[in-house]
Amino acid sequence: MDDRVHPEVRRTATEIDTMEIRGAATIADAAARALRTQATESDAADAEAFRAELRAAARTLHETRPTAVSLPNALRYVLRGMSSTTVEGLRQNVVDSADEFCARLERAQADLGQVGANRLRDGDTIMTHCHSTDALACVEAAVEQGKHIEAVVKETRPRNQGHITAKRLHELGVPVTLIVDSAARRYLNDVNHVLVGADAVAADGSVINKIGTSGLAVNARDRGTPITVAAQTLKLHPGTMTGHTVDIEMRDTAEVVDDETLAELGNPTVKNPAFDVTPPRYVDAIVTERGQFPPESIVILMRELFGEGTSEPWAEP
Amino acid sequence: MDDRVHPEVRRTATEIDTMEIRGAATIADAAARALRTQATESDAADAEAFRAELRAAARTLHETRPTAVSLPNALRYVLRGMSSTTVEGLRQNVVDSADEFCARLERAQADLGQVGANRLRDGDTIMTHCHSTDALACVEAAVEQGKHIEAVVKETRPRNQGHITAKRLHELGVPVTLIVDSAARRYLNDVNHVLVGADAVAADGSVINKIGTSGLAVNARDRGTPITVAAQTLKLHPGTMTGHTVDIEMRDTAEVVDDETLAELGNPTVKNPAFDVTPPRYVDAIVTERGQFPPESIVILMRELFGEGTSEPWAEP
Amino acid sequence: MDDRVHPEVRRTATEIDTMEIRGAATIADAAARALRTQATESDAADAEAFRAELRAAARTLHETRPTAVSLPNALRYVLRGMSSTTVEGLRQNVVDSADEFCARLERAQADLGQVGANRLRDGDTIMTHCHSTDALACVEAAVEQGKHIEAVVKETRPRNQGHITAKRLHELGVPVTLIVDSAARRYLNDVNHVLVGADAVAADGSVINKIGTSGLAVNARDRGTPITVAAQTLKLHPGTMTGHTVDIEMRDTAEVVDDETLAELGNPTVKNPAFDVTPPRYVDAIVTERGQFPPESIVILMRELFGEGTSEPWAEP
Amino acid sequence: MDDRVHPEVRRTATEIDTMEIRGAATIADAAARALRTQATESDAADAEAFRAELRAAARTLHETRPTAVSLPNALRYVLRGMSSTTVEGLRQNVVDSADEFCARLERAQADLGQVGANRLRDGDTIMTHCHSTDALACVEAAVEQGKHIEAVVKETRPRNQGHITAKRLHELGVPVTLIVDSAARRYLNDVNHVLVGADAVAADGSVINKIGTSGLAVNARDRGTPITVAAQTLKLHPGTMTGHTVDIEMRDTAEVVDDETLAELGNPTVKNPAFDVTPPRYVDAIVTERGQFPPESIVILMRELFGEGTSEPWAEP
Amino acid sequence: MDDRVHPEVRRTATEIDTMEIRGAATIADAAARALRTQATESDAADAEAFRAELRAAARTLHETRPTAVSLPNALRYVLRGMSSTTVEGLRQNVVDSADEFCARLERAQADLGQVGANRLRDGDTIMTHCHSTDALACVEAAVEQGKHIEAVVKETRPRNQGHITAKRLHELGVPVTLIVDSAARRYLNDVNHVLVGADAVAADGSVINKIGTSGLAVNARDRGTPITVAAQTLKLHPGTMTGHTVDIEMRDTAEVVDDETLAELGNPTVKNPAFDVTPPRYVDAIVTERGQFPPESIVILMRELFGEGTSEPWAEP
Amino acid sequence: MDDRVHPEVRRTATEIDTMEIRGAATIADAAARALRTQATESDAADAEAFRAELRAAARTLHETRPTAVSLPNALRYVLRGMSSTTVEGLRQNVVDSADEFCARLERAQADLGQVGANRLRDGDTIMTHCHSTDALACVEAAVEQGKHIEAVVKETRPRNQGHITAKRLHELGVPVTLIVDSAARRYLNDVNHVLVGADAVAADGSVINKIGTSGLAVNARDRGTPITVAAQTLKLHPGTMTGHTVDIEMRDTAEVVDDETLAELGNPTVKNPAFDVTPPRYVDAIVTERGQFPPESIVILMRELFGEGTSEPWAEP
Repeated sequence: MDDRVHPEVRRTATEIDTMEIRGAATIADAAARALRTQATESDAADAEAFRAELRAAARTLHETRPTAVSLPNALRYVLRGMSSTTVEGLRQNVVDSADEFCARLERAQADLGQVGANRLRDGDTIMTHCHSTDALACVEAAVEQGKHIEAVVKETRPRNQGHITAKRLHELGVPVTLIVDSAARRYLNDVNHVLVGADAVAADGSVINKIGTSGLAVNARDRGTPITVAAQTLKLHPGTMTGHTVDIEMRDTAEVVDDETLAELGNPTVKNPAFDVTPPRYVDAIVTERGQFPPESIVILMRELFGEGTSEPWAEP
Repeated sequence: MDDRVHPEVRRTATEIDTMEIRGAATIADAAARALRTQATESDAADAEAFRAELRAAARTLHETRPTAVSLPNALRYVLRGMSSTTVEGLRQNVVDSADEFCARLERAQADLGQVGANRLRDGDTIMTHCHSTDALACVEAAVEQGKHIEAVVKETRPRNQGHITAKRLHELGVPVTLIVDSAARRYLNDVNHVLVGADAVAADGSVINKIGTSGLAVNARDRGTPITVAAQTLKLHPGTMTGHTVDIEMRDTAEVVDDETLAELGNPTVKNPAFDVTPPRYVDAIVTERGQFPPESIVILMRELFGEGTSEPWAEP
Repeated sequence: MDDRVHPEVRRTATEIDTMEIRGAATIADAAARALRTQATESDAADAEAFRAELRAAARTLHETRPTAVSLPNALRYVLRGMSSTTVEGLRQNVVDSADEFCARLERAQADLGQVGANRLRDGDTIMTHCHSTDALACVEAAVEQGKHIEAVVKETRPRNQGHITAKRLHELGVPVTLIVDSAARRYLNDVNHVLVGADAVAADGSVINKIGTSGLAVNARDRGTPITVAAQTLKLHPGTMTGHTVDIEMRDTAEVVDDETLAELGNPTVKNPAFDVTPPRYVDAIVTERGQFPPESIVILMRELFGEGTSEPWAEP
Repeated sequence: MDDRVHPEVRRTATEIDTMEIRGAATIADAAARALRTQATESDAADAEAFRAELRAAARTLHETRPTAVSLPNALRYVLRGMSSTTVEGLRQNVVDSADEFCARLERAQADLGQVGANRLRDGDTIMTHCHSTDALACVEAAVEQGKHIEAVVKETRPRNQGHITAKRLHELGVPVTLIVDSAARRYLNDVNHVLVGADAVAADGSVINKIGTSGLAVNARDRGTPITVAAQTLKLHPGTMTGHTVDIEMRDTAEVVDDETLAELGNPTVKNPAFDVTPPRYVDAIVTERGQFPPESIVILMRELFGEGTSEPWAEP
Repeated sequence: MDDRVHPEVRRTATEIDTMEIRGAATIADAAARALRTQATESDAADAEAFRAELRAAARTLHETRPTAVSLPNALRYVLRGMSSTTVEGLRQNVVDSADEFCARLERAQADLGQVGANRLRDGDTIMTHCHSTDALACVEAAVEQGKHIEAVVKETRPRNQGHITAKRLHELGVPVTLIVDSAARRYLNDVNHVLVGADAVAADGSVINKIGTSGLAVNARDRGTPITVAAQTLKLHPGTMTGHTVDIEMRDTAEVVDDETLAELGNPTVKNPAFDVTPPRYVDAIVTERGQFPPESIVILMRELFGEGTSEPWAEP
Repeated sequence: MDDRVHPEVRRTATEIDTMEIRGAATIADAAARALRTQATESDAADAEAFRAELRAAARTLHETRPTAVSLPNALRYVLRGMSSTTVEGLRQNVVDSADEFCARLERAQADLGQVGANRLRDGDTIMTHCHSTDALACVEAAVEQGKHIEAVVKETRPRNQGHITAKRLHELGVPVTLIVDSAARRYLNDVNHVLVGADAVAADGSVINKIGTSGLAVNARDRGTPITVAAQTLKLHPGTMTGHTVDIEMRDTAEVVDDETLAELGNPTVKNPAFDVTPPRYVDAIVTERGQFPPESIVILMRELFGEGTSEPWAEP
């Protein structure tokens, strides 16, 4: 690893890598803050060295989670602001951009929550998959609007992020029913909405989210249950506008089965993809802080936000 | 519990209840053998007392697993043979019927395996859910036919019966890929067949099988992957011919989450249904020892085997 | 009209024609009784004249409702029993057959009701279309089993037979919600079953029932709501085994709009088909007094009951 | 009711409420004219009082039909133009805005009609539901283009607005076949298009229209018949961009069944929802005066017309 | 090739192989006649030699077309009748069986034609794929019933058997529209039925027919057009009852592209499968000489005709 | 034909008409160059005569292929640039516009190819229909990215444009399997993408492409295989924004069957539509030189490029 990278940045990168830091907004926030630290702690001799340091820090962060689309968005946002020609000026640029980014980020989730809450009615029951703070924000806002909401929570193997969701919903006063992932179809006719988050949203309207989302969405459609994806615009993946597909991270097999058991089973291959891809025809609406959209129209919002070009500002020139 | 019931029968009942004995054929076999033990060990004074003992034993066994349709079928088979009027004669009746049942049962799976194997082609990859010796028999026969078969094995939360399947397939020389249940859809286009067993098959063509089967079947249909159910005729549920539905067993919540974690999550309700119901339109064929059938025609086979009447021979007159 | 036909038979024919007598079982019962009256009141000089009279009576009845499949079945049943060679003997044959038919008919609905009731669970809500005593028998039996059932009743334009259903359900203690036909989809996710009767069931598994049934069934499938058809075997249409289609009766346009209004609208064409055809893929089960069947297997039951041949016993030789 | 509100405005409000004034454009036109009358007849002492009067009038009108989305649009359009600081100036503002709105409204339907007519071919038969002047404008323009068009008209219980459609089509020289709502599926393969209007179109692409539209659309898709929605941009509901759902008006039960009959039926609950929601996947195109759009892209047109914000200009500050 | 086989049998085998003899009934008829010739021309010294000759002849015929299921059925029928112990007796057995088979075969198609004709209505238009005398028999019977039938005929690349169908329909007075295979979907909404034959029908309800049938059936379902398969019971494949799949013949690539063109294209691989498999869910009815059946119930008819066992009577003992 | 039109323009028109010039980009390029020739070779006396000549040339070209949407786009582009008031100035305008158009056109395909290539993964197999240089550009770019691509190529009756595709793919080093059109479904589960071009894309998201595309797309959806349409923005049809449908060219019947054969078949009607219409719900993405879009959002891109108006610049004023 590049020794210009500040230990704090490295620690952030490690925590993103090990999923101690998880959830798209949390990652983006941490990444922006890490770049801020790199900037404030830098002793670079000149502007060029400072810029190189920041690029190195951004690369270090970027390499931890290639599919966490919020990460490059945060990095782009902060690096894009570096317009000064002096070290001090650049340092201030980074601090300002990072602060702005984090402030904006914080408001985005609350705004998104309002939009999502408006889709819910008093007395509704939702079904969740994995843990998404965006999805949670919708429920929180609905509860604040005085609506009674209940939830069926899928545990979400292999890492059981559903437990976190169950706990947070309990704290909001939402009665929770916890089920294994395989039991979802059985309860789909008892719920009014499937409400999930997203790791990334592609230009063709596909939603990349925790493994199991697509199978749930297909069953929800079959049962007549609408499916809502809560995703800040931070999750819109600019690279997909030019046809790039999102690489699906293959995670450690130990999440699925421990080594001892594996040996007992004759050492089968284990495949542990972190995410899957839900086609737009199985999603009713994507809720963002800028309003709700059918997934087929999200590319137009992407064009508004990103234009048509793509390039990675952390690449060495 | 009725003290006329032999301790061996009680132990069998307990082992069925705790799932130490599991799989429909194993349960049926154990139940028939338990009745045989009850008969050989009986010191009943007269024929009536002997009959009452056997009914009591049958009831004890029957109450352990209301949805394990093979259990009442085994009990019916053995009790139906009791035509003698003396204790010794009845004892012999039970021994003969139980032996015949077990012999027939053993052959049934091999015959079913041949039928199922004929549906597989050399080089095929299958996807499995839960553990089914009927499904396994198809793979075993295919391997014996010289076909190379590979398998994607779903772990099958909450009890991970997929681990048993993985181990058995490994022993047959079948290369295995182990996945979490939520990853199934992602691999459905890579497999040629979904191959599962059944806990019961209903007269309306529905397949009752381990929770998660119906959601898998819906996704398999959506992906264009055929789904085969391997089920001996032992699994055909006579009560469903007169419209009875199959009660879905709700199992211990501790299988889903331990008490300590549960408390941390705010003690949500946990629902742990053992099975779900797959409508016939999502199943391509039911493979039995008497040939293969579309699920919509299985009721006609049931009429051949059971006629139209229903009554429980273990009920007190 | 043939003057050998008894006035009572003519009155029955008229009442069937004007729908004063309606519902397949009621029609069949009335037809059998009418033939019985024709026989008891006949003053035919010889056996041949008696037979000719009965054929004439049967033809008179048959011509009133070509799609009411129960009518020819009743006629076939009664005429088939005429084996004697004397007037008195034939008279007794007809009385015996008609009595037997009516007794059997009465029991059939109760048996069917038990099967249908077994499919319902305590607390279920059903949706009905038109008025069917077979469907009602299922609800009645369920209520007698101690189950709490609620109903959403479609009014069923143009003749509002849903009003009769609503009234009968009220008399059974079933809480009713009455809606216009167009509101059905909106309430489909709130009901557990769609439960309708049938005017006829065809060998290809199609269900011929009151206009609007097929559109309801398609929406029920789309919403994930199972659809059950309650139909005594009396409704199985033998002619369809040899490919005959069921002619759909076009009823009086005055049922749809009165003449004055019609003139105000510029005298549009009015089409008022009595029935439509629901393909088997939109029906989950057909409940009969002989058990339940997927619609795709009903042809096998027809072969059991009718064999392969068809001919009309009321035709002049 | 607020006594500042002019009797003419009250009468308009009443007529909207009782459906004497019906159809989205007619309502919007009446609302704009009512505000114009309020303005011309006002004797407000100062600008603030004038503004308060207009807000009161707008509130009075708005409260009559919460789902008639054209109503708030008309109110917004007229109130938005009030930029003067004097009573006379404001009066002129309102007169100008109302006149402009009405002129624009009148042209919109003709433009929409051209777009819709272009989708129809000479010899086409359409099926209609309810009465929509937007849909009618398409047919009228097609007829003016020299195309021969025929129509199957659903009567549209409970208020039989299909009768109005039948009459208007007759006046255009279009041969009409009138059917009950339940007969729609039977005739879907005989028509080339389903052509309906809309009460509102939501940001997620859903179409809110007369109860029965969604069930018709599902059947049209199943039959392979394209469905076109004719809806001026006036029907695009701005509140749905931020996730708000459209409340479905529950109308008087007497429209469904008179009180005497109701009593005879045992006084069942009657539910009489005025509208239902058709998801975008069952609609082929929304025809507006600005061109045709797949329903999934209509949110982008809404952003063009309304931006992202929402607030009710008739609320008291 | 075995020199005991009569040259006439060899010629028949060759003509089946080269598709000069084509169509399932024609093949079966020719095979039965070939065995008859083998029998009448045999100079076998003893019964055993005669039997061996017949087995050899049957094998020669059987090897020409493994998927033409009528071929083994004809062979089974004729060989099964060989009960005598003398050469003369066996010769007579074969002559009798072959004559009976051919007579029965001839009647079967006419009976099937009646059933299929009953499904058609006066004025119907059908769409055909490939050439099937069973399908043609339905049209012929309908024409004889006085119905006006029109046809859209797919040419059916690569061998253009649609041309034969077009010619035969023309001879029946049926107006024909000829199209390329790719144009089928465009005309599906203009036809009332898709009517095709079958090479084989499997126990799981699948229909094996000329390549292109399955793609047509999927589109017919999507367009709401019913699809009827005309197949004598001769086409029911007994081996599929025990799970065997039907091997799809891969035919000469020269049918697809000539060698010179192939070389110009860079010698791509050419794949020319003769048949494909249509799942039962895309077929509305199978019309046989014993009535019509939903494909899901055909296995029950197979059990009636063939029982459960399978063995090849032409195998050497 | 107008004698002001230059022979070169006439030759181009003829070559477009006879399909010597084929493929949307090639046509557009030829049309632009033809107008350039008309301009450079013109000896018009004044500006008005020059303009009239160019309009005449454009009309001559436009009339050859009404559905080849690229043709009017090219004509619009070149004619739109004519702003000068002198013959020399106008001549230069046309030369400049035509050169710019052709340059832009050339780059567009390469840019589109990059986007399409990004959707493909190393090792993917595609299925093609007809010949599309846009689709080919995607494969070419993928090959240049170092990806191994294989292809299943449909021959595309009646003109076998698949042969051209096969040849071009061979030249790119892509292994090709050639099949008849009817064999497509059989190989859909073996391919990763269906990749086709388009003749035109409509505002409602429909794709107009070579006859057979829609049937292929429906089967691809049924098999779970994604379908990508490669279409430069040149193919977006402005007239469809105002509801105009695209007329489908009916081509010479001799392409389907020669006259001699036709006579042998009894001279059936032959219908030879050049294109069909694929609804947007069967297309996953439209790949253009400006990025990829779900078909439902393409209307928004059309509004960006064309605005809302339509008029034909080659019409006489």
